[in-house]
Amino acid sequence: MRILVANANTTEAITALCADAARAAAAPGTEILAATPRFGVAVISTRAENAIAGHALLELLAEHAGQIDAAILAVSHDTALEAARQLMPCPVVGMTEAACLTACLLGARFGLVTLGGTETYRELIGRHGLAGRLSGLEGVAMTPQQAVAEPAAAEEAVLRGALRLVEGGADAVVLGGAALAGMAARLAPRAPVPLLDGMACGVKLAEALVALAPPKPRAGSLAAPQGRATGGLSPALTRLLLGG
Amino acid sequence: MRILVANANTTEAITALCADAARAAAAPGTEILAATPRFGVAVISTRAENAIAGHALLELLAEHAGQIDAAILAVSHDTALEAARQLMPCPVVGMTEAACLTACLLGARFGLVTLGGTETYRELIGRHGLAGRLSGLEGVAMTPQQAVAEPAAAEEAVLRGALRLVEGGADAVVLGGAALAGMAARLAPRAPVPLLDGMACGVKLAEALVALAPPKPRAGSLAAPQGRATGGLSPALTRLLLGG
Amino acid sequence: MRILVANANTTEAITALCADAARAAAAPGTEILAATPRFGVAVISTRAENAIAGHALLELLAEHAGQIDAAILAVSHDTALEAARQLMPCPVVGMTEAACLTACLLGARFGLVTLGGTETYRELIGRHGLAGRLSGLEGVAMTPQQAVAEPAAAEEAVLRGALRLVEGGADAVVLGGAALAGMAARLAPRAPVPLLDGMACGVKLAEALVALAPPKPRAGSLAAPQGRATGGLSPALTRLLLGG
Amino acid sequence: MRILVANANTTEAITALCADAARAAAAPGTEILAATPRFGVAVISTRAENAIAGHALLELLAEHAGQIDAAILAVSHDTALEAARQLMPCPVVGMTEAACLTACLLGARFGLVTLGGTETYRELIGRHGLAGRLSGLEGVAMTPQQAVAEPAAAEEAVLRGALRLVEGGADAVVLGGAALAGMAARLAPRAPVPLLDGMACGVKLAEALVALAPPKPRAGSLAAPQGRATGGLSPALTRLLLGG
Amino acid sequence: MRILVANANTTEAITALCADAARAAAAPGTEILAATPRFGVAVISTRAENAIAGHALLELLAEHAGQIDAAILAVSHDTALEAARQLMPCPVVGMTEAACLTACLLGARFGLVTLGGTETYRELIGRHGLAGRLSGLEGVAMTPQQAVAEPAAAEEAVLRGALRLVEGGADAVVLGGAALAGMAARLAPRAPVPLLDGMACGVKLAEALVALAPPKPRAGSLAAPQGRATGGLSPALTRLLLGG
Amino acid sequence: MRILVANANTTEAITALCADAARAAAAPGTEILAATPRFGVAVISTRAENAIAGHALLELLAEHAGQIDAAILAVSHDTALEAARQLMPCPVVGMTEAACLTACLLGARFGLVTLGGTETYRELIGRHGLAGRLSGLEGVAMTPQQAVAEPAAAEEAVLRGALRLVEGGADAVVLGGAALAGMAARLAPRAPVPLLDGMACGVKLAEALVALAPPKPRAGSLAAPQGRATGGLSPALTRLLLGG
Repeated sequence: MRILVANANTTEAITALCADAARAAAAPGTEILAATPRFGVAVISTRAENAIAGHALLELLAEHAGQIDAAILAVSHDTALEAARQLMPCPVVGMTEAACLTACLLGARFGLVTLGGTETYRELIGRHGLAGRLSGLEGVAMTPQQAVAEPAAAEEAVLRGALRLVEGGADAVVLGGAALAGMAARLAPRAPVPLLDGMACGVKLAEALVALAPPKPRAGSLAAPQGRATGGLSPALTRLLLGG
Repeated sequence: MRILVANANTTEAITALCADAARAAAAPGTEILAATPRFGVAVISTRAENAIAGHALLELLAEHAGQIDAAILAVSHDTALEAARQLMPCPVVGMTEAACLTACLLGARFGLVTLGGTETYRELIGRHGLAGRLSGLEGVAMTPQQAVAEPAAAEEAVLRGALRLVEGGADAVVLGGAALAGMAARLAPRAPVPLLDGMACGVKLAEALVALAPPKPRAGSLAAPQGRATGGLSPALTRLLLGG
Repeated sequence: MRILVANANTTEAITALCADAARAAAAPGTEILAATPRFGVAVISTRAENAIAGHALLELLAEHAGQIDAAILAVSHDTALEAARQLMPCPVVGMTEAACLTACLLGARFGLVTLGGTETYRELIGRHGLAGRLSGLEGVAMTPQQAVAEPAAAEEAVLRGALRLVEGGADAVVLGGAALAGMAARLAPRAPVPLLDGMACGVKLAEALVALAPPKPRAGSLAAPQGRATGGLSPALTRLLLGG
Repeated sequence: MRILVANANTTEAITALCADAARAAAAPGTEILAATPRFGVAVISTRAENAIAGHALLELLAEHAGQIDAAILAVSHDTALEAARQLMPCPVVGMTEAACLTACLLGARFGLVTLGGTETYRELIGRHGLAGRLSGLEGVAMTPQQAVAEPAAAEEAVLRGALRLVEGGADAVVLGGAALAGMAARLAPRAPVPLLDGMACGVKLAEALVALAPPKPRAGSLAAPQGRATGGLSPALTRLLLGG
Repeated sequence: MRILVANANTTEAITALCADAARAAAAPGTEILAATPRFGVAVISTRAENAIAGHALLELLAEHAGQIDAAILAVSHDTALEAARQLMPCPVVGMTEAACLTACLLGARFGLVTLGGTETYRELIGRHGLAGRLSGLEGVAMTPQQAVAEPAAAEEAVLRGALRLVEGGADAVVLGGAALAGMAARLAPRAPVPLLDGMACGVKLAEALVALAPPKPRAGSLAAPQGRATGGLSPALTRLLLGG
Repeated sequence: MRILVANANTTEAITALCADAARAAAAPGTEILAATPRFGVAVISTRAENAIAGHALLELLAEHAGQIDAAILAVSHDTALEAARQLMPCPVVGMTEAACLTACLLGARFGLVTLGGTETYRELIGRHGLAGRLSGLEGVAMTPQQAVAEPAAAEEAVLRGALRLVEGGADAVVLGGAALAGMAARLAPRAPVPLLDGMACGVKLAEALVALAPPKPRAGSLAAPQGRATGGLSPALTRLLLGG
């Protein structure tokens, strides 16, 4: 089984970090590929950057259509997730979506801790229809760059945020942010509830979907595009939108 | 990996049907065990029957605590799901929960088709916090017994229900009901969107959780019971509630 | 009129406490009976214990079917409330449900103060569809046993919780927990808004329902069970599920 | 115990109809008074009429402050309900509110059938925070005047609406509209679920509240007005707003 | 274009304050008229006062029907807003509604700061269906009278409240309360997000509606009243309810 | 005042149609500019196409930053609306957002009629937080191309959809879809409630926002990007993301 880890940030180091976290979680027969978009923003942090990244991500995915069994979006905003799901012939999973749905399997309500502001995560979880399962959000006052520079301090701050969420009623805590990929496993021994890593959850759910082999929808809002006239798009994207 | 298919109905044939559907979905290294409760109702269909089954199911699960890696509740009401999750040292997945969360990974909104009334499914999905992802419910006017007696008619009726749900905006359709275990695969070629089987989804999600190996919570509403004084319960249940 | 106070905890002292609170609120012609289940947990405090208690409670209620005019569940989790409502030929009222609905008659939003954690009450009120009327929850850091041992300290702590809820917008405050039965009347002179006792409210609402004499539903999710095949259940429960 | 049936329509016949329904439900020691406002609309049916009636109703209630133990608003829009609750020193119950809360005690979801349009009832139930308990609304194409002129036809139409609601998942059905006061009892033998009459439910809940004797709030949004400077209001209303 | 600023408080100074704020925002061709009701409460602050003001406001508006192009309710509770909308032949805008809808055009979530308690604003925003856009509410511990007496202190307190709301996720902040009319413009230079003044927003939205020239609805819940029999109402109100 | 009508479809004819509708609604001093994106899809109709269009639209808007007073997104999916709002130094309004918010000013609940499927509009209105104001959705079985080819048939079908929405409780009806720009005015005489045109509403709300002159947020989720490192983006977009 070949799973693509598709970054939407243009920073190769984030792609590598996420791919490593994915490989650590992958089953024996699962091969993890990784890719970084051709254009966009180094580290997505605002609405405009995320909207641009949607196009970059779809272009990146389109290049792999037919060559992979599933894709995981290695961007914590689950950028263009349902667009990707509609476009691609294979399952697509968002890393934050994956962690949140896994949290739903492990507890009644979950919290999310991230670096920086929490508003866009609140919106994302609302858009996933999971607001009723969310106990709270904690933002750590560090940028992804600072977290990489001072990993021990970042881990302490994230753990403190997770503990506050547990006090507030969380049965599980999602670590939100591509820059936190892999951290959950290191903090787990010190946390009283499960900590969920988006890449690890994403790999397991992607493997599960591939095994279930759901057919590509022929109706509804995720049916593949057919005969869409386009201009100025990459050859792979143009082809997928034309269908056939 | 050993996964228990735990029925909450006392009908062995349902246990066998669900275990077969689970085995069809299991990965090579996954062993499926199956068990039927000591007391309760032959085929759960009302609120009172379901409440009784909660105790029967916990008793059944308690007997397997420590001997299994995960459990799947083979009862479409996800009976006592969070109680089981709290009680057991291993992951527990509900079959309807599993199908609904998988549907969330495959589309924007999903529908559910079942035999008989739909009110309790509406409540169940609401209790799972997924009402915002539900496009509609369809009830087929057949009992589980009739569906077993006339499988072709049941399949036609379920398919018609699924098609109505697709017209109403469903990107995926959950087949709700232990008696429908295994039917999704047979109907799939004729359905324009993925049809989700609770047992198949349950096995894949249970395997995913086992692989992720989340720690048993030490805090929150799913922390294991400790030192609970009880009376009149089975030895295994008494032991688990005492903890230690 | 005969009203059964049905405990779901196996502790006789709680049954007595609740029955006393019920008698204090009962109208002249109302006779209060009280009963304790045959099996279960001494003091229910977690999800698994509550699921077990559902069966115990239904068994207890079934023994009284036909001999009482109404039942009040003397357990603050409103354990198996709608199952009991479906099973029994007479009205059934939950003590927390009763207090919350009464609070709705007395103000715009209400709060709830309890001993210990608040998550299960948040869920309960959500399940009753009253989340929009809830202003907040306060948990007092005492066990029911400690509250019985130090009643003055418990009363002070509960009052402080109630006052915080009033500051947060509560027009009325529910005292949640069977162990708090009777406390509202003692604290009332010191509280700026109505404090609601589940047993007192339960008695008045049960009396109201008995006077209204609603017919037992013949359709819908609360219609009496008919011809349900069971095994291993108590004679009374078996009989009620058979119907006829 | 003295309970005031306070109409907000200026039609004496509606006041009488509601008072009769209230008396039929009242306990032996309960005296039912009835009153009609000095100004307003004969039969309230639109938003503007309802807003005007709010003032008329408060003026009417103010005249009875101190002389009654509770009031029931005999207007199905629960006109100015929380304003009345804040103004008056005694409990105030709305007739539709009372029927809806009673329905919550008798089933999982309830429906409402009324004469004419249903939008304002949808809003009212939403404002009461009970939208999650509402299964549906049915409007009968008759005016209150027509229903009075052709009672048999009205009863048939209301019953048909109730049956449609039961098919749609209602465990109980509220009859909405002052003009329907008393009809529920006549239709009950032909209905498969409880039919709820606002005046009957209102009387029983008002009696329950009087027995519970909740203190008048001294804080929160229902605390009595104090020292409010007014102009052009009736003497009784002016006095109550001044407080003291 | 003639726009009426209709106060629901009987205090002329508030009318003048709001009219001044409206004139400051009006387009060149817009004439601002202002009016104060004949009866009611000097400064509306509780539920009962607001219900009375609904009638006073409709009476006031009715006197201007046919002579104005739009009306703005100069009362922060948006008193009787939809009743006024139904009654009048021209557009009617509430000042808090206007500020909240404008906030929706400028950000993802907005906060509201006001003098005194916040519960009625929470309800109002919920009734407008905008609860999902509300990030939080802040109440400043001052009465409108104190704010007028100490304007500098009031401005500091309102600004501090706005800054707390920004920390809590607000992209824009509504200043709620007729007594705050005009303050937003003075605080704007010191606020990091837009501050919204109800009168200014109301004027711009009213001008927009007049330009769009929507027809008066002939169906639905805002259709003009027709042939409504009334008693004891002002001549203008009587005439409008009669229609014709 | 200069307002940009920014199409996200690459079809010039749609740009022209929307610009014409905008000009018909513009105030005397308002100049309408129009622009079509450099790349993308001829007529956006699915999720993937809409995600791509987000980037195209931001690129288009960035080219006009500093030269316009406001922008209206001439695409009924309100593509990348909040991203555009964050990116641009001036107000940005979505055409469907504008029509829905205007509908909120004119009635209690509104409906929406469009060509083709309604699921994405349901999501869009949910994302705007306005689901509670939505009475229903109607999809007309025509493509935009067919509607252009057979305008009379399209108008009849849209009108029939609007009438069904009025029966279902709509006080106003939004015409959703750039291809319907201008149709509302033609159908208005035959509709019993206001029909809302996204471009007309967008122009009036944009004019209102420009007049209010809200400052660009310096905090929150809409603060301008600052110092974002990018690659492969257009010069204008690169510049705006760098800030300065």
